[in-house]
Amino acid sequence: MNVIAVDAMGGDRAPRSEVAGAVAAIRQAPIKVILCGDRDRIEQELVRCEAAEAEHFEIRHASQVVTMDDAPGQAFRHKKDSSLRVAMNLVKDGDAAAVVSAGNSGAILAHSLFVLRRLSDVDRPGIVTVFPTPSGRPLVLCDMGANVEVRPTMLAQFGILGAHYNRIVHKNERERPRVGLLSNGTEASKGTELTRAAHRLLSSAAADDDAQFEFAGYVEGSEIFRGTVDVVATDGFTGNIVLKVTEGVSEAVLEMVKANLESSTRAKLGAKLVEPALAEVVRNVHPSAFGGALLVGVRGIVMICHGKSEPTAVANAIVESDRFASAGLIQSLAAAIERHHSLWDAEKSR
Amino acid sequence: MNVIAVDAMGGDRAPRSEVAGAVAAIRQAPIKVILCGDRDRIEQELVRCEAAEAEHFEIRHASQVVTMDDAPGQAFRHKKDSSLRVAMNLVKDGDAAAVVSAGNSGAILAHSLFVLRRLSDVDRPGIVTVFPTPSGRPLVLCDMGANVEVRPTMLAQFGILGAHYNRIVHKNERERPRVGLLSNGTEASKGTELTRAAHRLLSSAAADDDAQFEFAGYVEGSEIFRGTVDVVATDGFTGNIVLKVTEGVSEAVLEMVKANLESSTRAKLGAKLVEPALAEVVRNVHPSAFGGALLVGVRGIVMICHGKSEPTAVANAIVESDRFASAGLIQSLAAAIERHHSLWDAEKSR
Repeated sequence: MNVIAVDAMGGDRAPRSEVAGAVAAIRQAPIKVILCGDRDRIEQELVRCEAAEAEHFEIRHASQVVTMDDAPGQAFRHKKDSSLRVAMNLVKDGDAAAVVSAGNSGAILAHSLFVLRRLSDVDRPGIVTVFPTPSGRPLVLCDMGANVEVRPTMLAQFGILGAHYNRIVHKNERERPRVGLLSNGTEASKGTELTRAAHRLLSSAAADDDAQFEFAGYVEGSEIFRGTVDVVATDGFTGNIVLKVTEGVSEAVLEMVKANLESSTRAKLGAKLVEPALAEVVRNVHPSAFGGALLVGVRGIVMICHGKSEPTAVANAIVESDRFASAGLIQSLAAAIERHHSLWDAEKSR
Repeated sequence: MNVIAVDAMGGDRAPRSEVAGAVAAIRQAPIKVILCGDRDRIEQELVRCEAAEAEHFEIRHASQVVTMDDAPGQAFRHKKDSSLRVAMNLVKDGDAAAVVSAGNSGAILAHSLFVLRRLSDVDRPGIVTVFPTPSGRPLVLCDMGANVEVRPTMLAQFGILGAHYNRIVHKNERERPRVGLLSNGTEASKGTELTRAAHRLLSSAAADDDAQFEFAGYVEGSEIFRGTVDVVATDGFTGNIVLKVTEGVSEAVLEMVKANLESSTRAKLGAKLVEPALAEVVRNVHPSAFGGALLVGVRGIVMICHGKSEPTAVANAIVESDRFASAGLIQSLAAAIERHHSLWDAEKSR
């Protein structure tokens, strides 16, 4: 039975969403949750949720909270008894398999780096986001926002980490996931100095006999949803923009669909009938349906939830992190990056 | 009556789309079109279109064609009698007010730079794209792909050029269009070194008493479709990805809507009734409905159409370029950039 550490005080609705999410999660999966934060407030929420499964919960009191306005480094240095720090320490000490937080994402990143530390050979950890696609096969994008200014090795590693996340978590039927590098065109002459260097690194890594992924070269933004690749590697600046544009366009298109459905009596009549179908699409394109985003490249499973997370999103993140732990995800990611050790070494000495 | 030069040989379906587009255009607007390219083939197409309006057409023979595979610089140096070059020369010599081409976009950019030249103080020209939004107010994005690696002044100028394009062309009811700088978050600490420097420049420019735009600071990808800003400034790498993600997501969402409409008898019945409304949305989100993308920052109106353009797209581009010419767009853009001359000068000497 995996133990999951939950930062119960991080989100905008803490500790309500976190505790209710944890209660929902232990009813879905055979796990134990350690709730980190203000003991009294957590206990109150457990009572409110009528959580009778006492053997599945433990509370680890923490006297401090990292707020959304705290500078990440400052929070690490000065709030040594924060709910986030206590949760991270549980993973570092081997008392928990994963940490889930809806708190300050910069602080989650900083704590992951300083408390858990990077996997060997990993330059910088990245955030993985999963996009639904019409084909039903999820698309993995990395990095979604952890690193706005990157080096070529980071971009290449985001592709490889994403590929192994996809392979382990989504049990991709293709043995070797197809990794694309996001660019402004598919020709090799396109992209920037940065993407051209990353293109070279990913080509080398994929040519390795032991490589467990294929490199599909450059992909354009439109390919993300077309099922031609399983994984898209990009920097955190562009990745964040891709995620936000996706949210914005989905909303805009659905709004236009709805407006057009009001345009005639015939369409209005049809609109009533298709309403449930449209609601289903809205649910599908909303990223919080996926729970949280995984930070890859550190020595532990770290799930970052949106600050506004509802209990359902927190529950999904907890259940997913349990699945990641059982699948041995961290060991696989570590092996995937170490496999290409000579490549990273050669790049450092360029 | 404005004269529009059309590169009749550039697109994938040349000269058919170009000639049919020109014929459609002169039936919509009081213009004259000079078709540049192979005289025999253009004449054949005019016959096929039953174009009786001989006084609205002129053919300027060109013996060469710039292909999609030609390197832009090479094409400029070695194909001095290409249909693109002949069309550009007409604008340079004052014999035409605008040039429209569905050819090699890198070559169109190179010819614009070398034949027409940049407006005074403009670092690099950018490509403007217009996105439809649910509010009905168009959103202008610049640069959509002309410059993948940029300097801060370029980003700031893309914002200002976009603002004045919006003011002149869309007759924005707000006197001063709101310009946002695309970033991975709205806080001033977000973005890259590049965007932070551009943020500073746009803030200075907007603080000018004569500035005819407002600077809204950083905007996230989701804001593009929400009507909070009128113009979004970004580099050509990111701009291209925004455009392509928008296309991909629109397609994906509509596909999911359609799939969900097949999910139940009730929904299927409704689907039949809403079909025309959905088709309308598809037309709206398809960028070719807008015809072409304008290159801003050079001494002439240059419309870049997609290589796969249908006659309708070419016709729209021709009619739009006529409208731009009548509105005195180039003079306004030139004045808008020169107004902040001291700012560009100061940045150069940093």
